[in-house]
Amino acid sequence: MTTSNSREATQTPYLLLEEAKIKKNVASLYDHINKLGCYVRPHLKTLRSLQAASLLLKDLSSPATVSTLAEAEAFASAGYLDLLYAVGIEPHKLDRVIELSKNGATIHILLDSVTQAKAVVECAAEREFQFSAFIEIDCDGHRGGILPDNALLLEIGRILESGGVSVTGVLTHAGESYHCQTQAEIQKAARNECLAALTAARHLREAGIRCPVVSVGSTPTAHRVDDLSGITEVRAGVFSTFDLFMKNVGVCTTEDIAISVVTTVIGHNLEKRWLFVDAGWMALSRDRGTASQVEDYGYGLVCDMEGKPLNYTVASVSQEHGIVILPEDDKCGPENFPLGTRLRILPNHACATASMHDVYRVKQNDEVDLQLWDRIRGW
Amino acid sequence: MTTSNSREATQTPYLLLEEAKIKKNVASLYDHINKLGCYVRPHLKTLRSLQAASLLLKDLSSPATVSTLAEAEAFASAGYLDLLYAVGIEPHKLDRVIELSKNGATIHILLDSVTQAKAVVECAAEREFQFSAFIEIDCDGHRGGILPDNALLLEIGRILESGGVSVTGVLTHAGESYHCQTQAEIQKAARNECLAALTAARHLREAGIRCPVVSVGSTPTAHRVDDLSGITEVRAGVFSTFDLFMKNVGVCTTEDIAISVVTTVIGHNLEKRWLFVDAGWMALSRDRGTASQVEDYGYGLVCDMEGKPLNYTVASVSQEHGIVILPEDDKCGPENFPLGTRLRILPNHACATASMHDVYRVKQNDEVDLQLWDRIRGW
Repeated sequence: MTTSNSREATQTPYLLLEEAKIKKNVASLYDHINKLGCYVRPHLKTLRSLQAASLLLKDLSSPATVSTLAEAEAFASAGYLDLLYAVGIEPHKLDRVIELSKNGATIHILLDSVTQAKAVVECAAEREFQFSAFIEIDCDGHRGGILPDNALLLEIGRILESGGVSVTGVLTHAGESYHCQTQAEIQKAARNECLAALTAARHLREAGIRCPVVSVGSTPTAHRVDDLSGITEVRAGVFSTFDLFMKNVGVCTTEDIAISVVTTVIGHNLEKRWLFVDAGWMALSRDRGTASQVEDYGYGLVCDMEGKPLNYTVASVSQEHGIVILPEDDKCGPENFPLGTRLRILPNHACATASMHDVYRVKQNDEVDLQLWDRIRGW
Repeated sequence: MTTSNSREATQTPYLLLEEAKIKKNVASLYDHINKLGCYVRPHLKTLRSLQAASLLLKDLSSPATVSTLAEAEAFASAGYLDLLYAVGIEPHKLDRVIELSKNGATIHILLDSVTQAKAVVECAAEREFQFSAFIEIDCDGHRGGILPDNALLLEIGRILESGGVSVTGVLTHAGESYHCQTQAEIQKAARNECLAALTAARHLREAGIRCPVVSVGSTPTAHRVDDLSGITEVRAGVFSTFDLFMKNVGVCTTEDIAISVVTTVIGHNLEKRWLFVDAGWMALSRDRGTASQVEDYGYGLVCDMEGKPLNYTVASVSQEHGIVILPEDDKCGPENFPLGTRLRILPNHACATASMHDVYRVKQNDEVDLQLWDRIRGW
């Protein structure tokens, strides 16, 4: 395997993406959601890459979600027009939102309090700018948002509307679905997520506030939802590459995982049956999300270079070292992995592992050369 | 507080360094080690920055340690001449080591096996290059290295020497000292670390292999060692900024910690007494090193903007959200931290938190403007 940059190609660790798998994962979820009458507003925070976004967004007007204004800036610069900044807005950030909108993009903001609504209205008046806001609804106590029946919902809606801020929609995220144990539980979480968003939208509309968009989503619920009546759009992020956490949640298989860290065996401890690899937490991240799940993959699942799982995990990491401990009863010992052997590590959490890298090396179809995709960094 | 880049200055999260504290931490350890007759070969992997390195290295010939060839390349380009790449070498990386040496720098490599020694000798002959090698010694079973009394030590030494590779030294790292419970235990680990390195050096020298350098070190043992007879140099990395993990190990106080993430309150859950801040794991890292220590700081200790600890921790994180849970019995509630409040978070692990950022904002003396320091990235 070589790349367009041959010296770089032989250097590990690096992050490998498989484009064909990403395309398959995307098509599969989009097909499911489209059949239920909605569109997907993909979360671009996992890969944070213009090239990757082009696999997720049909054209420049396709709706997308971002987690930082740095992403919004990069995607708006590339011409994308419909970006939802899905983290609660605070006043220091409003100027950047206004600046971003100058080239024609709409940057929807998110809020869930009277204080935020008042700050946005004040800025809108001062800067003579028309903001577009989503109100965040809490469906499961996971993180932010207000409960759909909370009277503050209407108060926020009225402050915004009377202040000239568009109440574009309500938004909720079933974050607790990540901890579901069964597919039935995920389905229940999906129904609950829809119910919370629909209830909030109904309250707003009954009070005369337009609220055209009803936005729900998380990768687990998006895959298991079976009724999207009344819902406008579904958000999901990690589904494009998947990871071991989502494999444990039951919404993908290890074969669907499109992201891995390529590493090299740099040493052995023969007595302890240890392999040292050059992927430490700097390449894999410190994420141990699978530790509390049905199968604990340590710091990642070891595969051969064709992507076949070898059923060993990275047991521990330091900054630039990973340690793979081979099982005692296995016929395969450290001697089967000589110095210089290349391996691939499937990550616990794609977003976290991707965040450790500045560049992706991408396998496209059957091409031998790997393409380089840049990652958007910072805030 | 403003910076040279005013828009950036008001945007959070960002990573703040306090230069005066770094200088104090560096002077304190160097003084201790110099008094014991040795010099410090600082590990530059924590901050990976040319500007930070200038606080740690007196001049271009000062010895330094790096954890990646990307660091070696950046520091060699800046003129530094004595760099130890302290991760086991594998053959694919030797060409970069040779290339790096062309401008006059010595890049010492590290190895602990006959296989590595043979590969290095083979490359040395083929490329007519004089490598400088350290042999890694295992003092506590923590990670790599061979035991000082293992007969392989001499075999490796002889292969290298007869192959024209300089055996510059032996190196050991008391990685298990991070888990010591008392200062007496750290002192014991320090003595054991020295003993392992001295024993290995003696074996090599008795066999006629020169081995001029005896290198030991870890941040805990470097601070508690009281006798360095026979030792040449001491390595340590995280001591320049320290962190909550090292505070728990007992080698610094929270006041000594020179690194923090500046964040903004972006929302509240008043019933649950939650503050939402815009520092999630993307800004803080996923490191939970203090979870198994005497005091668990969650994802970091919350301080005011003057750096005074408020005794709240970041209880949970998602990608761009942190949640601070205020205690029930505390007179200070979420209303005391209005939307837009700036806070500083001390990190569990400086190396991991720094790795999430591309740039440092540095407070120098009493200057109001923050300086920007770049971070070296990748491998």
